[in-house]
Amino acid sequence: MENSLFIKACKRQSVERTPVWIMRQAGRYLPEYRAIREKYDFLTMCKTPEIAAEVTIQPIEIIGTDAAILFSDILVIPEAMGMHLEIIESKGPIFRNPIRNAEAVKSLQTAGLFERLQFVMQAIKLVKERLNGKVPLIGFAGSPWTLATYMIEGKGSKNFEIVKSFIYQQPEAAHELLQKLADAVVEYLNAKIQAGCDAVQIFDTWAGILSPADFEEFSLKYIRYICENLQTNGAPVIVFAKGIRYFKRLADLKCDVLSVDWTHELGQVRAEIADRKALQGNLDPTVLFAPREKIKMEVERILRSYGEGSGHIFNLGHGILPNTPVENVKYLVQCLKELSAR
Amino acid sequence: MENSLFIKACKRQSVERTPVWIMRQAGRYLPEYRAIREKYDFLTMCKTPEIAAEVTIQPIEIIGTDAAILFSDILVIPEAMGMHLEIIESKGPIFRNPIRNAEAVKSLQTAGLFERLQFVMQAIKLVKERLNGKVPLIGFAGSPWTLATYMIEGKGSKNFEIVKSFIYQQPEAAHELLQKLADAVVEYLNAKIQAGCDAVQIFDTWAGILSPADFEEFSLKYIRYICENLQTNGAPVIVFAKGIRYFKRLADLKCDVLSVDWTHELGQVRAEIADRKALQGNLDPTVLFAPREKIKMEVERILRSYGEGSGHIFNLGHGILPNTPVENVKYLVQCLKELSAR
Repeated sequence: MENSLFIKACKRQSVERTPVWIMRQAGRYLPEYRAIREKYDFLTMCKTPEIAAEVTIQPIEIIGTDAAILFSDILVIPEAMGMHLEIIESKGPIFRNPIRNAEAVKSLQTAGLFERLQFVMQAIKLVKERLNGKVPLIGFAGSPWTLATYMIEGKGSKNFEIVKSFIYQQPEAAHELLQKLADAVVEYLNAKIQAGCDAVQIFDTWAGILSPADFEEFSLKYIRYICENLQTNGAPVIVFAKGIRYFKRLADLKCDVLSVDWTHELGQVRAEIADRKALQGNLDPTVLFAPREKIKMEVERILRSYGEGSGHIFNLGHGILPNTPVENVKYLVQCLKELSAR
Repeated sequence: MENSLFIKACKRQSVERTPVWIMRQAGRYLPEYRAIREKYDFLTMCKTPEIAAEVTIQPIEIIGTDAAILFSDILVIPEAMGMHLEIIESKGPIFRNPIRNAEAVKSLQTAGLFERLQFVMQAIKLVKERLNGKVPLIGFAGSPWTLATYMIEGKGSKNFEIVKSFIYQQPEAAHELLQKLADAVVEYLNAKIQAGCDAVQIFDTWAGILSPADFEEFSLKYIRYICENLQTNGAPVIVFAKGIRYFKRLADLKCDVLSVDWTHELGQVRAEIADRKALQGNLDPTVLFAPREKIKMEVERILRSYGEGSGHIFNLGHGILPNTPVENVKYLVQCLKELSAR
């Protein structure tokens, strides 16, 4: 896949147009996805390789994106460590027995993790067969901090006072948990690359709730560890630290691409990191509810903001929303392909 | 009140130590507040001058902050425009008939607004009498964008797709609404200053959900209008655009202070705006759940980050959380007073 637009852009090689994929492109905005989702619950879909493969491929055919991303969930790791997980798509994930002390951290089962996640590897193999070289496949994992946030809060949160109280009051237990998760993510992403993923993305969805100093101590440290311990075999590594302010401190990570949310200007981020990484992003997902003129205007603005030269992968600044009209997504992809052609 | 620590720091005059107040300092973390709250609902408290005055003064005596902020809610303005408002403190505000079209914007009653908000002016007069010059009193209003977000969404939101769909699909109606709100906020804050407020703060709580271009068009434009049309009589104006990335574009506002959330470094913001405004902030509110050593360390870090010279008002990066232990708040204020003494 070294010659695909997506992989070349990740490596900042010159491309004839900007490649595009969409976070959560295998998801509820697609009627074809909803038809399957009506028959199976979310976790069953994740754990059944044929279904996971099917919905992974849907957007490639329907929307025309330049990369596939394996349908899955970041929380299969804590589940494989022994935590009981429920996912209600409208409400988010729930752990009924969240982690609240050092005992609970110690009781997490890290041995044999890889065996319990074989369904993921099987899905990857099926997708690769069916894609047959058409576009690259991205695998992903949550960052240790983001996984820990869910595992400690137990459900969605507005102010995240439980997880933050935990890291402030029990920093040793917090670091033990984060290191366990970092090791698990390394093993997991390495296995995904071995199974056939052409690139991997680390999602730090809750990076932005931390002060810069706490982000360094409780999140970035472990992302750095993961990047340094991956055996990529040339697969690009994408880091998405949503909500962070300062990209300079990500510029020396051993990764290829930084994903950027919509509150930043790509051009300013590019200048801040002195062009040391490719950048991915960064359309506000709600712009897909706007009329076509606004969508086009925003695509133009983002392309202009990134500027000349290679190293841009177009994407949203966060996951696509379930109520997004499909025709607008198709228009976005078509529009990007036309406007970015060199 | 020109010689108070708070007002002097707002004007970047030299002070013997850094002044401190806390967003939502008149609130549920205080047992004395909860005792009153048990007897009256939230809006009754806002609308009864004696009660509003009482809870406004509580934290000055109990916590020892250097300014009082009038107990109220930003949504008294839309309510005075004719929208039916319910506030359930645990769930947030609810408008059962949110604004969804141009008709609804036109039907808002802007004439006589000031008369319907007399309870606020009466509360200010009571507070001023009871404070008797001890500390200055801050009045506040929501920014037009933040008010519109609540008025259009109708309740709390995760992705804000309703309000963003509205501004993208009906930009004319959106701008009409925002201009109406901007005029109302000018009238309201001018009246507050006339009634005795020594400073005013504009809360743009939802600034950070917009891309930089949308923030400029739908929020900053109206904040600028307000700042330019206030008759301050020397009262400092504080702007809090929570979640924004780029402070440079706030540096030419006709205001005195920029409030900063906890995801920024005060020193970097100060450099970005070339020291043109005083800065307020920026402790992560959840640090008040931490042990004393962490609280102290963070106070030191923030003072060091701001650096030498005047123009810093210590505060949290957002409102204090209801479950915050009071003894930690007292410790914070004491700690700040000691550590910042010159």
